[in-house]
Amino acid sequence: MHLTKSDIENLERKKRLNIINSVSGIKPANLIGTKSKEGQSNVAIFSSVIHLGSDPALLGFITRPTGEVPRHTYENIKETGFYSINHVPTTIADKAHFTSAKVDRQVSEFERCGLTEEYLNDFHAPFVQESSLKIGLSLKEELPIKINGTIMIIGQIEELIIPDEAVDDKGYIDLSLYNTAGISGLNTYYSLHPVASFPYARPNKIPDFGT
Amino acid sequence: MHLTKSDIENLERKKRLNIINSVSGIKPANLIGTKSKEGQSNVAIFSSVIHLGSDPALLGFITRPTGEVPRHTYENIKETGFYSINHVPTTIADKAHFTSAKVDRQVSEFERCGLTEEYLNDFHAPFVQESSLKIGLSLKEELPIKINGTIMIIGQIEELIIPDEAVDDKGYIDLSLYNTAGISGLNTYYSLHPVASFPYARPNKIPDFGT
Repeated sequence: MHLTKSDIENLERKKRLNIINSVSGIKPANLIGTKSKEGQSNVAIFSSVIHLGSDPALLGFITRPTGEVPRHTYENIKETGFYSINHVPTTIADKAHFTSAKVDRQVSEFERCGLTEEYLNDFHAPFVQESSLKIGLSLKEELPIKINGTIMIIGQIEELIIPDEAVDDKGYIDLSLYNTAGISGLNTYYSLHPVASFPYARPNKIPDFGT
Repeated sequence: MHLTKSDIENLERKKRLNIINSVSGIKPANLIGTKSKEGQSNVAIFSSVIHLGSDPALLGFITRPTGEVPRHTYENIKETGFYSINHVPTTIADKAHFTSAKVDRQVSEFERCGLTEEYLNDFHAPFVQESSLKIGLSLKEELPIKINGTIMIIGQIEELIIPDEAVDDKGYIDLSLYNTAGISGLNTYYSLHPVASFPYARPNKIPDFGT
């Protein structure tokens, strides 16, 4: 299949959504936990969490601003300045997936989807107990992406919880040990299996690839 | 393991790099192909490609600006306005990985790493022949991320090549069929296996999770 820009524009909307949401490759499955000032908790799945830097330790994710559709995650982050990012294990992919349903603000997706709120170290936002790797972040920057009206939310890592068994002494984390899931498109979940690890690529260490 | 912000700041640099580069979850493995005005081709691995929108079809990726270290991918995109994004199959993870070695600008990583340049439809930038899913993009926006001096490069999809067998009539793409790889941290490659697919999450279709 070879599609040009105009072929893509002329695709039926749902088919375009499915295709274009898949072409970036595998996406990480994360649940973002927040709590409003009034104490209403919220959790929602996001596949757009991205590493931005290690020092300071920064992660980004993409959202739409609140417009016709309310965006509880975004509103709570703006209100309080704090949120959590929690890896989704494949064992709870169904519960995680249905957090994307648009429910009323006074309904907590934790309860509706059978997930458990967890509070650690007086951190304002709830973590997801069923998740093995949990990150508490503070909001640092909101970056408007003018070309399509989305926003990149940038946060700094304040708290980081990793199971001891999943990280080795060099700091390598095995994502398969706790069944961390990937997502393709809008609704297909993948399990991850490590197949190869290579050293830092120094120019004088490039193998002879027979060229 | 529980690390606070100051624990992270006090980690040994390499260990911090490895840990923080892993905590966002799985990352997509993509090769970005470019060609300078003078005709020098370049290909480099990136794990930061992200879906930004479907209409228009936009992808982003994160890079550093050219400073002390030359950034050939970034320079070529700025010079010509075009680049390609190509999925990395696990079968060429080794070759893809070593494209990250800093070689002189007159050396093509295609040749050095045993990868094959492919030109399609008079598109300026080279595609990677060994890749099954290939995307040609035009530069639309450069978004400076001031907090750490990185840049998000935003491009629109101009050409999209997907193997017919990997996409169904709804537009779902099976990433496992052509062994598309994921990356954790800086150097571990994962294979992907679909485990579950769920319908669009309508509020009245949330399963009873026993709550």
